[in-house]
Amino acid sequence: MYGAGDVRVENAPDPVIQQPTDAIVRIVRSCICGSDLHPYHSLPASEQGTPMGHEFLGVIEDLGSQVSGLRRGDLVVAPFAYSDNTCVFCREGLHTSCLNGGFWAAGGVGGGQAEAIRVPQARGTLVKLPVGEDSELLPSLLTLADVYGTGYHAAKQAEVNPRTTVAVIGDGAVGLMAVLSARRLGAERIILMGRHDDRTKLGIDFGATDVVPERGAEGVERVRELTGGQGVHAVLEAVGYREAYETAFGVVRPGGVISRVGVPQYEDAPIGFASLFGPNITLTGGPAPARAYIEELLPDVLEGRVEPGRVFDRTIGLEQVPDGYRAMNDRTALKVLIQP
Amino acid sequence: MYGAGDVRVENAPDPVIQQPTDAIVRIVRSCICGSDLHPYHSLPASEQGTPMGHEFLGVIEDLGSQVSGLRRGDLVVAPFAYSDNTCVFCREGLHTSCLNGGFWAAGGVGGGQAEAIRVPQARGTLVKLPVGEDSELLPSLLTLADVYGTGYHAAKQAEVNPRTTVAVIGDGAVGLMAVLSARRLGAERIILMGRHDDRTKLGIDFGATDVVPERGAEGVERVRELTGGQGVHAVLEAVGYREAYETAFGVVRPGGVISRVGVPQYEDAPIGFASLFGPNITLTGGPAPARAYIEELLPDVLEGRVEPGRVFDRTIGLEQVPDGYRAMNDRTALKVLIQP
Repeated sequence: MYGAGDVRVENAPDPVIQQPTDAIVRIVRSCICGSDLHPYHSLPASEQGTPMGHEFLGVIEDLGSQVSGLRRGDLVVAPFAYSDNTCVFCREGLHTSCLNGGFWAAGGVGGGQAEAIRVPQARGTLVKLPVGEDSELLPSLLTLADVYGTGYHAAKQAEVNPRTTVAVIGDGAVGLMAVLSARRLGAERIILMGRHDDRTKLGIDFGATDVVPERGAEGVERVRELTGGQGVHAVLEAVGYREAYETAFGVVRPGGVISRVGVPQYEDAPIGFASLFGPNITLTGGPAPARAYIEELLPDVLEGRVEPGRVFDRTIGLEQVPDGYRAMNDRTALKVLIQP
Repeated sequence: MYGAGDVRVENAPDPVIQQPTDAIVRIVRSCICGSDLHPYHSLPASEQGTPMGHEFLGVIEDLGSQVSGLRRGDLVVAPFAYSDNTCVFCREGLHTSCLNGGFWAAGGVGGGQAEAIRVPQARGTLVKLPVGEDSELLPSLLTLADVYGTGYHAAKQAEVNPRTTVAVIGDGAVGLMAVLSARRLGAERIILMGRHDDRTKLGIDFGATDVVPERGAEGVERVRELTGGQGVHAVLEAVGYREAYETAFGVVRPGGVISRVGVPQYEDAPIGFASLFGPNITLTGGPAPARAYIEELLPDVLEGRVEPGRVFDRTIGLEQVPDGYRAMNDRTALKVLIQP
């Protein structure tokens, strides 16, 4: 990406092992993330551009000398941050704060919207998948890289349980995964705030019990009506705009939780007596430690009990990636799968 | 209080029962709160003034016809918000959001810096104390009205436990009660950020293991040094100024919790990627449901295992209340006890 709206497909040198803890992965499936749309809207133009993509699964082609537990030919999935899986933060399940970790497409590491990628901290980062390259489960398995883990993080941080009334803000892929996750954690009332029919229908399949298409003050009023005037115990905010945050504290119940996983496109926002403090609202969330959740979420995907891969509604090759961004930006595609 | 800095002692009509759920309490001990200093700094001048005080214990003088479980002559303590103790929020322990509750010195209810007060929702609000009016425990019992429960709320909301490293911001009475509470919940490392020697010494008696007198960036650096560069799991913020909040996210560890009980004197503040979101910080807290904690904290006070009443370092009569405000504002008194 060379600037807002400027996505190009280019030949790049093949990645090679640089550290003994690296692996090289040939990418089998990748995708475009809702969060990729933020730079697509606002990235300053540059001469050198930046690689893109942070969700991929693929086959190990090469391994550094210190990587144990993995072999060439293994099909693996990578979370959207690499991590050693052994440091003090990883041991606490906060892999996104790994002392030796980092994010794709930054600091000399490539992006996942590519044919191949160098994976730092391969042993800690990559999780072997017990299926073949031709498995029909690949789209669902790919959601473990980010969107499913991110939706699940929202629900876990909000401590969703069978007694929790939930509102999910946003009907993008992460919002829909938040619905699926809240249902998995036992929530029996899940209000999905979104206005794209095809998406909210999928949300209902995933467990949403109510859909509120209204936004702003009207949306807040609808959710309050649906909850006897009191609001919901947990709001899972999967958008990232300040308006979504304001909706969140509009619909949350006193003593409730706002759990954010949409990357905030703002820094300052209301947190004083009139918003969070007076009614004892808890604000939580952040970049999901997707790595922490892969083993937990994997069995349901492998056994077909959940189908998070249904969020992909278009499949393209690498050459069509610029079209994929346009389609997601125009909301003509929910989430675009890339088959390099 | 007739405006900033303008506290007067006046004769007022004796309170009388207005609702069958009311009680009239003759006040035996009351006090001035650190949060009373906020209006003392900024209350707009008015002709009619406002009653003050929200912490008291006293003797029941009269009871409405629907108040059961209490008798005339009972010595009782009241939390800083009245509540029915039966509504959906009270049952969840969030008495400050009681559907039939409210705050003292507002809406036709008087303040606790007085000889007597009308108590709405008396049955839910008042807790009988098994001691006499002459008990030496009265100062410690009075802290159950607010400061002890408030410090405890900070620690509970932060889920302080034996594995938690804690920083307490502020060496006022609530900060010191947060230290005591964190210790009670098992924390073994408690860093008290405060610069008044007499107060931090009391903090050490209450369980603080380190004192950091530096403020701002220097204070943040000191706490980071004391925690191997990583910061603390839990920050208990007992001040309420935006600078204190900024110190809080400066010293908190990735994945940690900022628990605020100092009444925020700001509305907007940083909560985006660079402050809370990126490192997955949780922000929690609010007005403490002091009522919820009285039964839990009472036995330790009655049996002398804790002495929260040590935060009172001056005792005055009602006539000296204006002096009491001055002394707390000048920091020549930590917390002023009123014996009407």
